[in-house]
Amino acid sequence: MAQNMAAEPGGQMHHEELVGAIRQAIDSGDATALRALIEEEHPVDIGAALEEFEPHQVWVVLDLLPLDEQADIFGYFERDFQVELAHTAPRAKLARIVTEMHSDERADLFNELSDEQQDALLPALAQAEREDIRRLAAYEEDTAGSIMTSDYAVLSEALSAAQAIEKLRHEAPDKETIYRAYVTSPDRRLVGAVRLQDLILATPKTLVRDLMEEGPVSVRVDEDQEEVARKISRYDVLALPVVDAENRIVGIVTHDDAMDVLQEEATEDFHKVGSVGDLDTSVRDASIGLLYRKRIAWLVLLVFGNLLSGAGIHYYEDTIAAVVALVFFLPLLIGSSGNAGSQAATLMVRALATGDVMLKDWGRMLGREILIALLLGLTMALAVSGIGWYRGGAGVALAVAITMVLVVIVGSLIGMSLPFVLSRFRMDPATASAPLVTTIADAAGVFIYFAVATAILFPA
Amino acid sequence: MAQNMAAEPGGQMHHEELVGAIRQAIDSGDATALRALIEEEHPVDIGAALEEFEPHQVWVVLDLLPLDEQADIFGYFERDFQVELAHTAPRAKLARIVTEMHSDERADLFNELSDEQQDALLPALAQAEREDIRRLAAYEEDTAGSIMTSDYAVLSEALSAAQAIEKLRHEAPDKETIYRAYVTSPDRRLVGAVRLQDLILATPKTLVRDLMEEGPVSVRVDEDQEEVARKISRYDVLALPVVDAENRIVGIVTHDDAMDVLQEEATEDFHKVGSVGDLDTSVRDASIGLLYRKRIAWLVLLVFGNLLSGAGIHYYEDTIAAVVALVFFLPLLIGSSGNAGSQAATLMVRALATGDVMLKDWGRMLGREILIALLLGLTMALAVSGIGWYRGGAGVALAVAITMVLVVIVGSLIGMSLPFVLSRFRMDPATASAPLVTTIADAAGVFIYFAVATAILFPA
Repeated sequence: MAQNMAAEPGGQMHHEELVGAIRQAIDSGDATALRALIEEEHPVDIGAALEEFEPHQVWVVLDLLPLDEQADIFGYFERDFQVELAHTAPRAKLARIVTEMHSDERADLFNELSDEQQDALLPALAQAEREDIRRLAAYEEDTAGSIMTSDYAVLSEALSAAQAIEKLRHEAPDKETIYRAYVTSPDRRLVGAVRLQDLILATPKTLVRDLMEEGPVSVRVDEDQEEVARKISRYDVLALPVVDAENRIVGIVTHDDAMDVLQEEATEDFHKVGSVGDLDTSVRDASIGLLYRKRIAWLVLLVFGNLLSGAGIHYYEDTIAAVVALVFFLPLLIGSSGNAGSQAATLMVRALATGDVMLKDWGRMLGREILIALLLGLTMALAVSGIGWYRGGAGVALAVAITMVLVVIVGSLIGMSLPFVLSRFRMDPATASAPLVTTIADAAGVFIYFAVATAILFPA
Repeated sequence: MAQNMAAEPGGQMHHEELVGAIRQAIDSGDATALRALIEEEHPVDIGAALEEFEPHQVWVVLDLLPLDEQADIFGYFERDFQVELAHTAPRAKLARIVTEMHSDERADLFNELSDEQQDALLPALAQAEREDIRRLAAYEEDTAGSIMTSDYAVLSEALSAAQAIEKLRHEAPDKETIYRAYVTSPDRRLVGAVRLQDLILATPKTLVRDLMEEGPVSVRVDEDQEEVARKISRYDVLALPVVDAENRIVGIVTHDDAMDVLQEEATEDFHKVGSVGDLDTSVRDASIGLLYRKRIAWLVLLVFGNLLSGAGIHYYEDTIAAVVALVFFLPLLIGSSGNAGSQAATLMVRALATGDVMLKDWGRMLGREILIALLLGLTMALAVSGIGWYRGGAGVALAVAITMVLVVIVGSLIGMSLPFVLSRFRMDPATASAPLVTTIADAAGVFIYFAVATAILFPA
């Protein structure tokens, strides 16, 4: 993204510029210049710039800063870079930074450390942090628990607005967001949520109970992270409280993490639609071996689909040998079938992912798709029948035109239905990738084409 | 999304349940039950449920509520539904609701109204709202200006913390977010941002000047909305200030709108990768005519690509006529070329969209892709050479194996490079759709296959 950070009114530097300036300051040992740079730029940008340096150089820079700023920048590093840095830091220093990190980022880092590193780090932490890390690190991946933070503020309903504000003032420096505090009953069940805004606006003696929103939207700790992110987006909230089976609050998921989840899930679906396995890392950083593994499985699987097309061709070898001109139209017809199928599949995969279309809409979508595909097929038939006539005469033209209508309809219906079928059997609809749909539609296209051509050119 | 709203601890009802309960209350004219329902459920869910009713029924429900709640629910309706409702409401009533709406949603609605409706509505509004609507509605689509709201709070640097809080208390009910107020100079230039949290924590006499973050990250009013959304995600902020060419603050873009933009843009890229034109509406609501138009252009265009494959086949008709068995492998080989190409294209399109990979990375990516494709091609060659031997003997097996390695490499390189090339010429990399890449790779595959086969089976 850095290429777009140039012309900022806020005075941000271009990524490369910032890297250059830091390098110069490190090389000349100019601590004042380094401090000034860091003061001026956003910690995200400092973090991105520092990732271009060696770990020992990064520590030189971080050591100049107060601990909270160190933790701030450290939290913005990619997880792999954090692990690399963790390797090169003395245990006590790492413990201090880890203690200051956001609890969700801290738990994620911890999960990436080797067993030895974990064992070395834990005793250096205070008991509260140790328990917090153990608790957060235990939640299953891709659940609300795995992305939540324990930095949230809790109030009891019997407090007055003034008391509540006072409590939040004390807790504020530690908490990820105090703009919405959660209200719990004496047995720690979630009963409400109250906005800082409303506490400030209220007369000081008003009770939290009378200011809070009762029974706020919440998510369960084992709920899928994508579902959680969608709810944050749906309800336009800064954060959603996460509760356990007894409705006790155990964490919050914040809007920025929700945004990251939605982006990750979109990337995952994107890759699936291109029939690439789940990468879990950026394409830029993925190793050649990893990329090979994520691609070969589908490629080989699809070969078997293509063999079906081959079998179809073999079955009609006599027709082909008699009218070789038919082969000219083969790529065109099966290609159109696959393309129409890819279009339909892509539309449905995304609509199912965003919740725009649901499983129960299948019937309605199918009816529409048949109509649309018929229109598409007729247009395409018109477009190619002239070429058919020119190359093979009336018979070939008729065979090509009829086939085109049929394959576009069949391809579209396959592409449109496959995501629903997968979803019905609780598989990810995005598995209905363009290559998979194309392969199936191709095979169907081969059989339709030669069956139609044989029937027209060699009537029994 | 409604199917997942069932087992909420917060007591939310299933969408269908809520629709049923509202219908029952409307039919029995039970205003108390209706009010209780609306009190209990989130306005988003009420909005989604009301969309299933006729406009006159919706007005029956809305009329029961205080104006701010009416506007709240109205704001959550889909734009089309808002327009439909606007048609059926008396001008004065519509004006009252529109006045209460968030300024960005109001401007979007206004843009959708017919000229007559706009002319009818404007005189019914107060001058401040009229000007605000005119101003916001004037910004070009997909820019920061088109998604920003004018509901933000501004402070001057000379205020004390106590004065600032007092000012925010008064403005709060109107402002979309007061958690971060913007600090401007006397000539309205943006000089800083201050968090409500820091105002509360500070001693009352501290000056805003000493509490604010100087030169906060901001965006220009004509900046692309996707870029704005990415920055909000990158800097993990609730909102970003929008400034004009003179660095005067003109609005803010909030995190929830940023999330919507990222989702929309992902959908758009998704559709492009499936070679479907930009829909601008949900697949569910799109008309058959619209979907036809968005799909036919690419399908017809791709026919010309496929004609190239046909031409290749025609060129090698003698070879085919002599060894008809070769056709058996045609779908397999060109299919694999297209599939490898789709994979590579999808990876690059998404990586370029998220900023994970940049234009300047092309060289590095190309080098890696050649290696990966070579490995993929060798594996695939191994997988199919046995079948080649079985069906056509050593010569065919050799031709198929060599072709496989070549087409997988060529397909991958086409798929990988096309998004970069498009991006280089300032076109959207997502135009490198799976069907487009498949079609190009197919044509290349035909020529490679028959050239190799002719060279091996009929050495000159």
